[in-house]
Amino acid sequence: MTEMTRRQMLVGTAAAAVAAAVPLVQSSSARAAAPQFGKQAPGFYRYKLGSFEITVVTDGKSRVPITDAFVTNASQAEVKAALAAVFMDTETFFGPYNPIVVNTGANLAVIDTGNGEAAYLSTKGLNGQFLTNLAAAGIDANAVDTVIISHYHGDHINGLLKADNTLAFPNAKVLVPAPEHRYWMSDAEMSRAPSPRIDMLFKNVRRVISGEVLKRLHTYEWGEEVIPGISAVGTPGQSPGHTSHVVASGNSKVFVHGDVTHAPYLFVRNPGWHPFYDHDPVQSEVTRRKVLEMLANEKMLVQGYHFPFPGVAHIEKTATGYREVPIQWDPQI
Amino acid sequence: MTEMTRRQMLVGTAAAAVAAAVPLVQSSSARAAAPQFGKQAPGFYRYKLGSFEITVVTDGKSRVPITDAFVTNASQAEVKAALAAVFMDTETFFGPYNPIVVNTGANLAVIDTGNGEAAYLSTKGLNGQFLTNLAAAGIDANAVDTVIISHYHGDHINGLLKADNTLAFPNAKVLVPAPEHRYWMSDAEMSRAPSPRIDMLFKNVRRVISGEVLKRLHTYEWGEEVIPGISAVGTPGQSPGHTSHVVASGNSKVFVHGDVTHAPYLFVRNPGWHPFYDHDPVQSEVTRRKVLEMLANEKMLVQGYHFPFPGVAHIEKTATGYREVPIQWDPQI
Repeated sequence: MTEMTRRQMLVGTAAAAVAAAVPLVQSSSARAAAPQFGKQAPGFYRYKLGSFEITVVTDGKSRVPITDAFVTNASQAEVKAALAAVFMDTETFFGPYNPIVVNTGANLAVIDTGNGEAAYLSTKGLNGQFLTNLAAAGIDANAVDTVIISHYHGDHINGLLKADNTLAFPNAKVLVPAPEHRYWMSDAEMSRAPSPRIDMLFKNVRRVISGEVLKRLHTYEWGEEVIPGISAVGTPGQSPGHTSHVVASGNSKVFVHGDVTHAPYLFVRNPGWHPFYDHDPVQSEVTRRKVLEMLANEKMLVQGYHFPFPGVAHIEKTATGYREVPIQWDPQI
Repeated sequence: MTEMTRRQMLVGTAAAAVAAAVPLVQSSSARAAAPQFGKQAPGFYRYKLGSFEITVVTDGKSRVPITDAFVTNASQAEVKAALAAVFMDTETFFGPYNPIVVNTGANLAVIDTGNGEAAYLSTKGLNGQFLTNLAAAGIDANAVDTVIISHYHGDHINGLLKADNTLAFPNAKVLVPAPEHRYWMSDAEMSRAPSPRIDMLFKNVRRVISGEVLKRLHTYEWGEEVIPGISAVGTPGQSPGHTSHVVASGNSKVFVHGDVTHAPYLFVRNPGWHPFYDHDPVQSEVTRRKVLEMLANEKMLVQGYHFPFPGVAHIEKTATGYREVPIQWDPQI
């Protein structure tokens, strides 16, 4: 039996057909193949958590050039080496967004809303996909009764509004972390915004958290159960009131950790790295290390907003930090 | 600002609402949430390879109890430890199936066909999902002009037939590896089948590779370009004529490696382990080590039939073997 050789393994189009014993009818048929789609599958993924059903729905991805500013306390070369280690593009960072829908049987709750329909139009579908993928998942935005917000960055709240500024979830209460709301709605805090970037975030918050959204808004405190089965956990740093959520049903739990860590192959593996968007990088690192340590010790499932879709993983300890272990896509739930 | 405590992180339903400052309207509304789906998303995933478009379409998964027989040269305890290390069930192995569709612009080719529609009915959808997910991906089985088979195990060929034994891809040529075809169609080989399991495989091959399938069948040799852009590479061991395929377009290549390694967290990480289904475990290990070494050295993309869906990964070397590095799901291609 012929064994595979390197030449055979890497055989290209030119070197082909040398050993043909039975002639194949090559594609000389008149018709061409079906047209290509040029479009990704609508990304959604379901899993059971006790009696709850969770649907992760991708909102798309960002594209950010890697510069020295991307991680404030690691060099561009270190960041690029970390990206190369996972075979990713080292020039442009590609960060996904994973809002989720929790069907508890009593509530249909969305946690974070993506970049919004306006972004879908302006980015030509790069992100802002949440509403279209939600529809592909068979979920009616009008049936959502609760939207839970982790924090007030645009990629989490902008999806509250459609492109025409009407409500994306017209029948939903909007539940937001009280400390986050207090900070961003404070004119005093806005007047001392520490950077132009943060000043822009303030302006965006006041654009979105207004009008009809504000009428439906309720604040919740850390430690509170915001709806039955979903509890709020203070995880500040990324923003002053950044909040994670424990979703629990029966003996099953998932820690929906928002932006405690962004891309896991960067910030789970290097929990001491400070991404540029952290409001308080030192506090964020303290939070991140606590959460990762807890997740590893408890072997608790984590749902990461910026983890590779569908964003569900466990965390293991390593010699130098932690490592994400993504769940295997389950073709039957 | 309150910091997260362990108690807060693990707060359950009972301990909730202690810190509520603003009362939330709990889910006392009359209507219940929308019904749950209880069904996974139809799993398909697209990627570009040069000018080709590849769609990975899940056929579902197997369920196999972990016993001492599962890996013939490793203990049940070692296998269970490897499963526990990736947070998987240690009692039951769950192995996915990933047929792919390659649209080259000139051909619409399927590589391997899954367990078939009959299995879909008998397993209640656990596997045999290929045709339904293919339809969900917008691909018409009647438009497929070429089916390429890697080897003659049932989970790769049974999908050639529908439940009523008519052709699943009625307009397709069926291209099969000549050494594989010779082995399984040989009455002499069948008469000396080394085990009842292999004897059953012979019987299954002769059930499927007959009638209308046989009329459309062409054999190809290792080293041959089976259709423009797809070349055959001999990778024997798992079965006598087991074949991998290099799909190449422009400067891009993917090594469609069939069953060279089964579950990567077991057999990529432990390339010396012999899974029970290997026809010639020693030859299979030689093939596996060669392929993994080549993939790691060339940083070449691999498409794994039994890798976690969508089964696209790179291979890195480790101190003790290799490790799979799955690609990140790309929400926009």
